[in-house]
Amino acid sequence: MTKTNPGRFFEDYAVGEIIAHAVPRTIKMGERALYHALYHARHALHSADTFAQSCGLPFSPLDDLVTFHTVFGKSVPDISLNAIANLGYAEGRWITPLWPGDTITATSEVIGLKQNSNGQSGVVWVRTTGRNQHGEVQLTFVRWVMVRKRGDGAAPAMVVPELADSVAAADLVIPHGLDFSNYDFALAGEPHRLSDYAVGEIIDHVDGVTIEEAEHMLAARLWQNTAKVHFDATLRPDGKRLIYGGHVISLARALSFNGLANAQMIVALNGGAHANPCFAGDTIRAWSEVLDIAETDAPGVGAIRLRLVATKGDVGPVRDADAKYLPNILLDLDYWALMPV
Amino acid sequence: MTKTNPGRFFEDYAVGEIIAHAVPRTIKMGERALYHALYHARHALHSADTFAQSCGLPFSPLDDLVTFHTVFGKSVPDISLNAIANLGYAEGRWITPLWPGDTITATSEVIGLKQNSNGQSGVVWVRTTGRNQHGEVQLTFVRWVMVRKRGDGAAPAMVVPELADSVAAADLVIPHGLDFSNYDFALAGEPHRLSDYAVGEIIDHVDGVTIEEAEHMLAARLWQNTAKVHFDATLRPDGKRLIYGGHVISLARALSFNGLANAQMIVALNGGAHANPCFAGDTIRAWSEVLDIAETDAPGVGAIRLRLVATKGDVGPVRDADAKYLPNILLDLDYWALMPV
Amino acid sequence: MTKTNPGRFFEDYAVGEIIAHAVPRTIKMGERALYHALYHARHALHSADTFAQSCGLPFSPLDDLVTFHTVFGKSVPDISLNAIANLGYAEGRWITPLWPGDTITATSEVIGLKQNSNGQSGVVWVRTTGRNQHGEVQLTFVRWVMVRKRGDGAAPAMVVPELADSVAAADLVIPHGLDFSNYDFALAGEPHRLSDYAVGEIIDHVDGVTIEEAEHMLAARLWQNTAKVHFDATLRPDGKRLIYGGHVISLARALSFNGLANAQMIVALNGGAHANPCFAGDTIRAWSEVLDIAETDAPGVGAIRLRLVATKGDVGPVRDADAKYLPNILLDLDYWALMPV
Repeated sequence: MTKTNPGRFFEDYAVGEIIAHAVPRTIKMGERALYHALYHARHALHSADTFAQSCGLPFSPLDDLVTFHTVFGKSVPDISLNAIANLGYAEGRWITPLWPGDTITATSEVIGLKQNSNGQSGVVWVRTTGRNQHGEVQLTFVRWVMVRKRGDGAAPAMVVPELADSVAAADLVIPHGLDFSNYDFALAGEPHRLSDYAVGEIIDHVDGVTIEEAEHMLAARLWQNTAKVHFDATLRPDGKRLIYGGHVISLARALSFNGLANAQMIVALNGGAHANPCFAGDTIRAWSEVLDIAETDAPGVGAIRLRLVATKGDVGPVRDADAKYLPNILLDLDYWALMPV
Repeated sequence: MTKTNPGRFFEDYAVGEIIAHAVPRTIKMGERALYHALYHARHALHSADTFAQSCGLPFSPLDDLVTFHTVFGKSVPDISLNAIANLGYAEGRWITPLWPGDTITATSEVIGLKQNSNGQSGVVWVRTTGRNQHGEVQLTFVRWVMVRKRGDGAAPAMVVPELADSVAAADLVIPHGLDFSNYDFALAGEPHRLSDYAVGEIIDHVDGVTIEEAEHMLAARLWQNTAKVHFDATLRPDGKRLIYGGHVISLARALSFNGLANAQMIVALNGGAHANPCFAGDTIRAWSEVLDIAETDAPGVGAIRLRLVATKGDVGPVRDADAKYLPNILLDLDYWALMPV
Repeated sequence: MTKTNPGRFFEDYAVGEIIAHAVPRTIKMGERALYHALYHARHALHSADTFAQSCGLPFSPLDDLVTFHTVFGKSVPDISLNAIANLGYAEGRWITPLWPGDTITATSEVIGLKQNSNGQSGVVWVRTTGRNQHGEVQLTFVRWVMVRKRGDGAAPAMVVPELADSVAAADLVIPHGLDFSNYDFALAGEPHRLSDYAVGEIIDHVDGVTIEEAEHMLAARLWQNTAKVHFDATLRPDGKRLIYGGHVISLARALSFNGLANAQMIVALNGGAHANPCFAGDTIRAWSEVLDIAETDAPGVGAIRLRLVATKGDVGPVRDADAKYLPNILLDLDYWALMPV
C-alpha cells in the first residue's frame, strides 16, 4: 500500500460528506508582505494600520484574497488533485476578516455530483469553508470541478445543487466596526465614491503586468497549493507550468486599483470562470464593469458589484459569436466589494 | 471622464504645491525578511536585534533604503508616471529610523520647474518627505525628473532651486541613542574602523550578482512602485522590463558590505545618477570611493561620505573623454553613512 | 591592503581554532512566510500555532532547516568561500528550536585538516554551532569541505576526526514539552504513525518541482549565504548559477511531506552528500528509505531515521557499478525526524 496521497477520483465523493482538509496555517505579517510583493496590492485598508483604524477596524486585516487562496490551497489535495478543470464558483461570502496571527483550518462539504456522459469523469460540487482558531467562519464558497474517474463503475445518483446567481446585497456581511464616515479619499488614492459609479460603466485598468515562472510558483507554494501542474515543467512539452487561477484573480484585482481604489474589501464572490489557461510570459490586463450598487447598514459603507475580466491581450470582447470565451480571456469574475458611499 | 490615473504632465505642477501621496503603508518584519531575500543585506545593525541593542538602539530598525524605496514608491503615481528620466537626487536626510510597525505616509512639495527648449517636456524638482504615524519626518530628499508635456502651452516661470552639493556633516542626524563605544567588529564582519579609511581610497567590492525579472518585479511591487515600465513586457520589442533604479542602489549597497561592513546606517543622500538603464540578465558589480570623513557628537560614531558606483561590466572608468557616463555604468551615488571611529 | 574578504585558504586553518562568524541574525515571521513560499513546506507543526500547541509547544517554531540554512550561511565567508567542494556532514543535532524573534550567532571549531596528495588543496573539517540570544545551542553539526591552498607550503600535521556513522537514538534531543499523545492525524495530513513504517521501506514522494534562478537566489540571500557561485552568471559559460545545496535539501524535504507528513521535526543530521550540482531548470523529485526506528522518552513521540534522495530524473538507482553517484542524483541525506508512535 502506498503512503502517498493519490488524490480522490470521482467515485470517492459522496453527497453530504464533510472533508476535513489537512495542515492548518497561521498567517502573519510575513504573508502580508509577500502578498504585496507578489500582487502589487495597493488598497489602503489592507496597506496601513492607520488607514484601517480610521475606518473603525483595530488594524489592517490581511487582503481578503489571502483568505481565499489559503482556504483554496488547503482543499486542493482532497478536491482537485485529479481535476481536469476548475469549472466555477458561487455563493462566496467573507464573514470574518483575517487578522495577523489567525490560524486557518478548512473543510469542504460535497453538495453535488454529476457523472459526465463520456463515463470518464464527473463534476463534483463542494462548499468549502475556512475557519479561524476560534471556530468562526472566515470564508465560505462553492466551487465545482471536473474530476477523473478511477474506473468504469456505475454513475452515482445525480445531485445538482441549486446555486444563487449572486449573493444578495442583504446577505453581505460587513466587518464589525467598519465605518467609512471619515474616509480619506486622498490617502486612499482616488476621489470616486460609490455614487460616482453607474451600473453598466466600464473601467479599463490600463496597466499590464507580465508573469514570471518564479512568481506564480512562489505564490502557489505560499498558499500551500499542491497541484503539480503549477510546479513540474516535465508535464508539458514546452516546459511551462500552468498558473494557479487564483494568481490571476489577485493580479487582476491589484490592477483594478487604478479606477477602483476605493473598492476596499471583497465581501462576496458571486461567480467566476478561469476562461483560458495562463502561462509565464503572458502579460495580464484587466477591466471592470459595474454590475450593481447597494446600500449597507454600516455608516458610510456601500457595496459595489463588479465584473472583473482579465485578458492576456488588449481589452476587448470577451466571447465569440458562439458565446465561447475568446482565447485571450483568462478570467471572468463577479464579486461584491465595499466602497464609501 | 476616466476614473484611472493618467499621471500628471509638466503643466500640472506649480511651484509651492504640496502633493499628498496616496496609500500609507505599514512596514513590519515581513518587509524586512523580503529585503534580505532581495538584496543580500548583511549590515549587522539591520540584521540582528542583539547587535542593534549593543549599539544603543531598542531593536534593529529596517534597512534605511526600505524607507527610501517606500517613500519613493508612494511618490511615483504623482511625480514620475509620465517621466522620461529620473535626473538626480540631492539633500536627502534620514531623520528617524523606520521601526517595525511604523506606517509611512509621503508628501512632495514642488520646488522647481524648467521647461526644456524643445517645448515637449520639462524638469520638475520636488522635495519628498516620508513621515511615520506620529507625524515625525523619517526621510526627506529632493529629486528631479524630466516629465512630458500634455500639450504645447506656454512655459511656466522658470524656478531652479538652489541645492547643496552635499549634506554638511554638521547636518547629519544621528539616531537617538546610537553608541558605537562597545562596537563588536568581529560580529559586524570586518575590523576596519573609520580611521582605517583614507579620503580618495577606492574599494572594489569584488562580488557580482545577476538580476532576474522576477526579482526586480517583486521588489518594485513591494515598494508599491507603479511605474509600468518595470512590469509590462509589451512596452519593449525585447520583452525586457526596465529595472527600478532603486533596485540597483540596494543591490550595490549590499555588495558594498564586502569592504564596508561597518558603514552601518545611511544618514544622507548627497546626490546620485542612474547613469544607464538596467535590465534582467545584467550582472552588477560595485566599487566605492571614500569622499570625506567626519566626526559626530554620538559616542564612538563617525561619518563616512562614500561614492558608490555600480557597473554591469568590469570595474573601471566611469566617464568617457566627453565626461559622459560609459554605457556599462548603472549608478553613481554619493551618500553619508555612520561608522565606528 | 585590501579591505575585502578574500576568504581563507587551506593554510589559514589550525586544528582547535574557534572561528566566530559574523553578522548575527534575528529571525521572525517574515522568514517563516518566505520559507513556505520557497519550499512548499507543509508539515503541520511548522505551519500552525494551534497544531504546535496541541503538541505541547508554546507556538509553532521555525522549520528546523531554517536554523540549518542560517547557521550554514554565517559560516560561508569563513569556511567555504574558496571551497572546491562541500564533501559531507555528520553529527548534526538540533538542540533548541528556533522561535520567532530569536537571534542566531554561529561559530565553527576546526577539528580536522588533511592536505590532498596533489598539494593544491586540502580537506578542512569544522564543527559549526548556532546559538540563540540566550547562548543556548540551537544546532551543531560537522561538515568538511575541500579548500584551495594559497601557495605550495608544507602540509600541516594531518588530523582526521573520528565521526559517528550516525547520531545514536539515545542522543536525540526532544524539544521541551513535545507531546504527541493527542496528535491529530487528520489535520496533519496522513494517517501513518511510526508503527506503520518498516525499516527498509521505500517511499516515492511522487511530485516534482522545477527550479528557477530567481527562487534559489532569493533563498541563498535570505540565508545570507555569500558564495558567489550562487549569484554571478559570468562565472560559467552557460550563465547558470550553481544552486546552494541546502536549497535542494529543503525542496526534497518539502516533497517528502507526501508520504511522510508525520515526520514533523528534524532532530539529527547523520550524514549527507550533494552528489551532483543542481541548476535552474532541473526538476527535482525525491524518495525516502526508512533506515531505523526508535523510541524516545517524550509522550507519544518516536524517532524515524530516513534516507532522503533527491534526483533530477526519474526515481531509480543511486550509484553505478563502481559505486559512484549516477549523474541525476543530487542529494543523499541521512537524518532523524520525530513522529507520533
